[in-house]
Amino acid sequence: MPGVLENSVATEVPGPLSKAAAKQLDQVFDARAVHFVVDYDKSEGTYIVDVDGNRFLDVYSQIASIPIGYNHPAAIAAAQSPEMISALVNRPAIGNFPSKVWGDILQNGLLKVAPKGLDKIFTAQSGSEANELAFKAAFMLYRRKERGEGVEWTEEEIKSCLNNSKPGSPDLAVLSFENSFHGRGFGSLSCTRSKAVHKLDIPAFNWPQAPFPARKYPLEKYEAENEAEEQRCLQAVENLITSWHCPVAALIVEPIQSEGGDNHASPAFFQGLRDLTKKHGVVMIVDEVQTGFGATGKFWGHEHFNLTSPPDMVTFSKKAQTAGYYFGDRALVPDKAYRQFNTWIGDAARVIMSKAIINEVLDKDLVAQCARVGDALYAEMEKLAQKYPEHVMNLRGKGQGTYIAFDTQDAAGLVKSMKSLGVLTGTCGLQTVRLRPMLIFEEKHIPTLIGAFDKVLGSL
Amino acid sequence: MPGVLENSVATEVPGPLSKAAAKQLDQVFDARAVHFVVDYDKSEGTYIVDVDGNRFLDVYSQIASIPIGYNHPAAIAAAQSPEMISALVNRPAIGNFPSKVWGDILQNGLLKVAPKGLDKIFTAQSGSEANELAFKAAFMLYRRKERGEGVEWTEEEIKSCLNNSKPGSPDLAVLSFENSFHGRGFGSLSCTRSKAVHKLDIPAFNWPQAPFPARKYPLEKYEAENEAEEQRCLQAVENLITSWHCPVAALIVEPIQSEGGDNHASPAFFQGLRDLTKKHGVVMIVDEVQTGFGATGKFWGHEHFNLTSPPDMVTFSKKAQTAGYYFGDRALVPDKAYRQFNTWIGDAARVIMSKAIINEVLDKDLVAQCARVGDALYAEMEKLAQKYPEHVMNLRGKGQGTYIAFDTQDAAGLVKSMKSLGVLTGTCGLQTVRLRPMLIFEEKHIPTLIGAFDKVLGSL
Repeated sequence: MPGVLENSVATEVPGPLSKAAAKQLDQVFDARAVHFVVDYDKSEGTYIVDVDGNRFLDVYSQIASIPIGYNHPAAIAAAQSPEMISALVNRPAIGNFPSKVWGDILQNGLLKVAPKGLDKIFTAQSGSEANELAFKAAFMLYRRKERGEGVEWTEEEIKSCLNNSKPGSPDLAVLSFENSFHGRGFGSLSCTRSKAVHKLDIPAFNWPQAPFPARKYPLEKYEAENEAEEQRCLQAVENLITSWHCPVAALIVEPIQSEGGDNHASPAFFQGLRDLTKKHGVVMIVDEVQTGFGATGKFWGHEHFNLTSPPDMVTFSKKAQTAGYYFGDRALVPDKAYRQFNTWIGDAARVIMSKAIINEVLDKDLVAQCARVGDALYAEMEKLAQKYPEHVMNLRGKGQGTYIAFDTQDAAGLVKSMKSLGVLTGTCGLQTVRLRPMLIFEEKHIPTLIGAFDKVLGSL
Repeated sequence: MPGVLENSVATEVPGPLSKAAAKQLDQVFDARAVHFVVDYDKSEGTYIVDVDGNRFLDVYSQIASIPIGYNHPAAIAAAQSPEMISALVNRPAIGNFPSKVWGDILQNGLLKVAPKGLDKIFTAQSGSEANELAFKAAFMLYRRKERGEGVEWTEEEIKSCLNNSKPGSPDLAVLSFENSFHGRGFGSLSCTRSKAVHKLDIPAFNWPQAPFPARKYPLEKYEAENEAEEQRCLQAVENLITSWHCPVAALIVEPIQSEGGDNHASPAFFQGLRDLTKKHGVVMIVDEVQTGFGATGKFWGHEHFNLTSPPDMVTFSKKAQTAGYYFGDRALVPDKAYRQFNTWIGDAARVIMSKAIINEVLDKDLVAQCARVGDALYAEMEKLAQKYPEHVMNLRGKGQGTYIAFDTQDAAGLVKSMKSLGVLTGTCGLQTVRLRPMLIFEEKHIPTLIGAFDKVLGSL
């Protein structure tokens, strides 16, 4: 009975069945981060059901990665399609033996929503991989320009790279920002600056990090200070680009720093980054792994910035249910085949699912819905902030769809209490509660979320 | 009509339709490495059909990654199962919200074929990712031992790692071998030593590479020299471990160096590596991305070595159609949750497919079949080597299932000629032709392969 679903929690969370299942799983597979074990057959839309029968309004969405809800009919239809079955059972090395439908799958899916100015794509399997592939394209382009167009590789380059030495393995850097998160591979992790739990004990490249604007809220009150702060950060970016021990080939930035605490900056800041990267010949990569696919009320988060020219590359994953990068400049295709390459180059099965999601999002105009519902949700959150000013601080995400967050003293405790009331939310940064509803989150779901917040905040 | 399929080529390869499709694709997706565009609906078993209607005996198998053939009924059944549909439409963040069937999928699939002594698993999406996750586990274990069990992280560690500096981001290394291939991420690529096209222009870690035994063939003739060569290499490994500028936390090795030219070493060499890694407290990672899942006539390539104790970690991908690493020692699970973590931690859909493949391989005893067919194929290849000694050199892979290769003057030209006769083979290293049939390759397919070789070699 659509529309009548409600959240309901009858056990502690996790419940006894979840606990037992996680304990058993942990014998063979690290289960320490398990919130609860899920009965996906019973989950529907924006509600997730655990094995104890508890039903949660899911405002976390598998770490911001579920776009159109559980068991969506359009997704099920795609899963049952002959195209999907073929992609599952005949997994191709896409770079060598693409299917005859591969081009159409891209054109009618991922390329339909390509960011303005970026009409080419390379597919991947995760946000981390997408970012690293983007870095590789940027590094190869940097050296290609340095080497000169059409100049062949030298014997010294060819030999030295096998030994991880210069000049074949050059010192080149990607600049990222304090508190950023760009993934967990050795290259992407070198750009991640969020938390020690992500980085400690893992060797990293000596790459620069610039400060990201530490905005003060409410924005209206701190306009001048915030502008000065952004200027300071832009100056630091330029200083790093011009003074780092090695060339900075690329800069990577999230439209909204997500894992790092939902940190926003102004369109002017991002325009400043675009200007600086243009000025210094640095490839600008916008990491839309978490912000992409509609969550900010525009299809891509960076559309909020009205950049005078598009970023060089935009990476995506999560709600796309697949991953990769978009680009426009053909020079970002390396000079020879097999340089940007791997066995699978993504997974056609997941790209087919992405196509179904994209068409559902476009058909139902879910991005506009997200913008509309986000505005309504933000208004309710503002009331909570007024009611509980000591517990709902630095509310942010106005006009950014449902990409809403606030700071509080004990974010983990608050999220835990919300869970016990049947609402899943998430934390990020050091003291932030983040909302990451699906695109199908509607006005009718708002009272459940707000009611739970009110109850928990009122009891603090 | 099963059994009556034959290869047939009616156009040049690639044919006009393949060329046109690849050209169109190349506008948006790098298609320079495309062999031909495939009609997977018409492909069946060990035969692949292109859009021009050409049918090839596939002895390359999507870069060694197709286990049981195109459109296998068991794979189709798995693709249509409710379990698969749920995994496709409800993609979980497995570490946080695993499905109630996740444990069973692992137990009845990947864990059924776990290498001896390694009863735990972490899943991934590619061989590159699997290797990097294994490196991370090894690095975290190294520092945990150094720090002391239960000792908390220091403020200095926590802060410095966010800046990619010591002590939080330590100088630690993974040792790999000359000519090895371990993937394309920034960490895995730092261990890859195969070709400049894989590595050039990409920053790399200053990690050591040891010589891999350069065996002389025929083995019977060069027994003493090969033994001395392996001793030399083992000595070099120990020297590197004890003298490198930073601690060597892990060693990674392929049972057969595959991309690097199908280079084999003896069981004694691998036992030597196991002894050295034990002696020096180095985590031994066996990269079975290409050798695993039965291709060598045993389920895991390293089973040929009768090691006195199992490797610490075994990574897999390709024929598994998913990826990850096995391990036995619980100390390889990091001290805290969320250290070895990412949003998806693999893809349950692909793990379900892996389960179906594993059960088919076990039910039909395809590993034993591969060993048997491999022996028959090797005998025929030996005849070719005797007939064309100047073109079929250093034949290798005896007793290694169908994992057979040889050197020749123009490997790429030979593979191209074979393709025009309707047989797909592959190259590796500098001058090697490699055979990578699927596990369903049978005695009946041998005459087609050998006949094509005979025709091409006879015309040189």
